[in-house]
Amino acid sequence: MEQRISLITLGVSDLARSRAFYEALGWHGQEIEETVFIQAGGLAVTLWGRDKLAADAGLADPGPAPGAPGGFGGMALAHNVRTRDEVDAVLATATAAGAKITQPAHETFYGGYAGYFRDPDGHLWEIAWNPGFTLAADGSLTLPDFGAS
Amino acid sequence: MEQRISLITLGVSDLARSRAFYEALGWHGQEIEETVFIQAGGLAVTLWGRDKLAADAGLADPGPAPGAPGGFGGMALAHNVRTRDEVDAVLATATAAGAKITQPAHETFYGGYAGYFRDPDGHLWEIAWNPGFTLAADGSLTLPDFGAS
Repeated sequence: MEQRISLITLGVSDLARSRAFYEALGWHGQEIEETVFIQAGGLAVTLWGRDKLAADAGLADPGPAPGAPGGFGGMALAHNVRTRDEVDAVLATATAAGAKITQPAHETFYGGYAGYFRDPDGHLWEIAWNPGFTLAADGSLTLPDFGAS
Repeated sequence: MEQRISLITLGVSDLARSRAFYEALGWHGQEIEETVFIQAGGLAVTLWGRDKLAADAGLADPGPAPGAPGGFGGMALAHNVRTRDEVDAVLATATAAGAKITQPAHETFYGGYAGYFRDPDGHLWEIAWNPGFTLAADGSLTLPDFGAS
């Protein structure tokens, strides 16, 4: 697993409010399918419904859940890999290291393959292969132009 | 506020356990003052005691607090700036945008200047000027060699 993060997803309760907040800070993104993607250096910050994020991560009941270990802080880190097989490999390594799989690897709605685990403190990680998001040689992620505003 | 993240701090309950977990994934860092710093692309992932992170962020009672809006998910994003004055400027902009300041800007133990706010969903951000962490022209952060293992 290379030492890098691909996306940080912030679970939000009101996408328009959240987007307006980050735009007020001077950040600009693209909204597609009720998700706002913001390029942030070599990774992306994503604003997405908290309920959708929890469901995607395999968490049955997101809130008002405890933020303590085992709970859901409403934020997930994603590590994207270059091949589909790497998803299985990283999830296996994480499991061997003591991670708990919350969402086994599966085909995703965007044509990729991904799964989630929790680290020993409950922090949520997604390991994803997304053929629509190209990783540079240095591992940085540059969002595609979705043609959205 | 430039569109980038400088550090992601994971609040952990057992630093040695957490470090061992990430090393098992193939990540390597340096430990200094009970903090593990891991270079991750153009930013740093930091492992730090959850209680210390909560106290640093001005949260009186970190847990087992709700991860729901207003709660503490045990994770904080940091945006580092190039000058001390920028800390005040960004915190003022965030406040005007509806953020709640949890820790006003103050001198830090490492000789810097920093403060924290929550976004509308409770996500925690630190805005920091750290003279020991140089930002490249593109905003990426490269950890110094602490001379630690």
